Amino acid sequence: MIASLATFSSVIETLGIVAFAMSGVFAALGKKLDMFGVLVIAFVTSVGGGTVRDLLIGATPVAWLKDTHTLQIILVTTILTLLLRKRIGNFQRTLMVFDALGLGLFTVIGIQKGLAFGLNPGVCVALGTISGCFGGVVRDILLNHIPALFHAKELYATTCIAGGTVYFLLNGVLDQEAVQTIAALVISSFRIISYLRKWHLPSL
Amino acid sequence: MIASLATFSSVIETLGIVAFAMSGVFAALGKKLDMFGVLVIAFVTSVGGGTVRDLLIGATPVAWLKDTHTLQIILVTTILTLLLRKRIGNFQRTLMVFDALGLGLFTVIGIQKGLAFGLNPGVCVALGTISGCFGGVVRDILLNHIPALFHAKELYATTCIAGGTVYFLLNGVLDQEAVQTIAALVISSFRIISYLRKWHLPSL
Amino acid sequence: MIASLATFSSVIETLGIVAFAMSGVFAALGKKLDMFGVLVIAFVTSVGGGTVRDLLIGATPVAWLKDTHTLQIILVTTILTLLLRKRIGNFQRTLMVFDALGLGLFTVIGIQKGLAFGLNPGVCVALGTISGCFGGVVRDILLNHIPALFHAKELYATTCIAGGTVYFLLNGVLDQEAVQTIAALVISSFRIISYLRKWHLPSL
Repeated sequence: MIASLATFSSVIETLGIVAFAMSGVFAALGKKLDMFGVLVIAFVTSVGGGTVRDLLIGATPVAWLKDTHTLQIILVTTILTLLLRKRIGNFQRTLMVFDALGLGLFTVIGIQKGLAFGLNPGVCVALGTISGCFGGVVRDILLNHIPALFHAKELYATTCIAGGTVYFLLNGVLDQEAVQTIAALVISSFRIISYLRKWHLPSL
Repeated sequence: MIASLATFSSVIETLGIVAFAMSGVFAALGKKLDMFGVLVIAFVTSVGGGTVRDLLIGATPVAWLKDTHTLQIILVTTILTLLLRKRIGNFQRTLMVFDALGLGLFTVIGIQKGLAFGLNPGVCVALGTISGCFGGVVRDILLNHIPALFHAKELYATTCIAGGTVYFLLNGVLDQEAVQTIAALVISSFRIISYLRKWHLPSL
Repeated sequence: MIASLATFSSVIETLGIVAFAMSGVFAALGKKLDMFGVLVIAFVTSVGGGTVRDLLIGATPVAWLKDTHTLQIILVTTILTLLLRKRIGNFQRTLMVFDALGLGLFTVIGIQKGLAFGLNPGVCVALGTISGCFGGVVRDILLNHIPALFHAKELYATTCIAGGTVYFLLNGVLDQEAVQTIAALVISSFRIISYLRKWHLPSL
């Protein structure tokens, strides 16, 4: 059961890495970058959130340095996305679902890493949100935008904060696997619903 | 005596966090960010300098992760500043004084942290300056400006360098509390005077 | 022999620091920064790549904090470059050669630091490339550009990746000093040749 959950997580994590890298490639294409630039943008979109988290808590070398696969997955994703970019453009909804799955999983991974470092719940929710969302922030800084996360009014960081709150409401009540699964599903499904229904933050 | 000095520092530190967060909120308001974006900008303006310092020396988890209060102070400050923003706009001079107090204290905290890590005086002054000034640099990067610190010609980083030099001239001559207090006061008062008299760096 | 190699490396490292700092000063001059801003830009151009590398692997305090000379070399370089900037403008080719020498050496230093942390070859090549190239990326972020490294189509990061590949092809075949020297020379000479012949990455 735990093994199959771990396998399941690892499949979702790969889908999330791929979806984030693809969104990086599409963002980079609008800016006339060269091949190396597109690859770096795909890379930071995918691993930037986890990297910022690992730097802040001191979990170094950061995760992708200790791992032979992440660099390879992102390289292959970038090349395939560039080759097939016209066809992929028709699958925006599929990509959004992958992105939402990745968002849920990455947020939960960030929360657990914070707990493993003995940090308090409010800080863990912030770390989870950073894990899920800050790849896009680093991408937008490199592409010389104000990060979309800060002005788009979409429920993106908000879903991570909501899911993180659910995590700590259930923590200790249910067992670990259940808490993680429910929190990740809350984030993913809330993200998908808010996207489809065009829910927004209130204006200031 | 030491206890009352510590309490006094902690009051000044809170005033500094509040002043820096408020300046972040006002900077963010000009950019049409959403609620989450304003909160992040307030946050990085307030803790960004100390975070960069802690990352560079490897004092991780960085300070605000180990602390339950900083996140809460900044959250409350952001909400109150948004609600009361028209009234607060009339208190720019008061805010500038808080900011100058925070600048002096944060710089001295940075210098001491450098010393605790066994770094040499020149490097400690650089770390103190980063602690005091780089929250504004990270804020300006996120808001897609060239950092004001690099072109405004105000005596801002310069006051930190001057105060840091005073610190090491007095270090070993006077006792620790006296050195820290004098260096922080030199920075705060030099900052206030240079602001009121509009002193500037010479043009290149 | 080893001593003289170390001295030779240290001369090249200083030349690289100087060349990178000078390129930072020239980039900053176009942006009407004040004296402090020019100094920070020179500094991050010079040590930014190694700093990003050290943060990612957790080699903290980062290299320039433990070293009394780097800050001084960059300070002196910045002042002399500002004073002599009209004359230096005629020596662009000389500067480019220093920059290429620094690029080769910094990349090899990055690879070796990755190996010392037990990281795999692909990741070490990425770290070497970051060491050589990301000072310019941080400089461009601070100057509010999309990093030139990502769109200029020059063979810059590509030369680091090529030289890193040579490093691991020869590693274990030749002795350590030979591998390092050859890899650094491959990067420097490939960079100089591609610059003079205006070689570019293919368009997307």
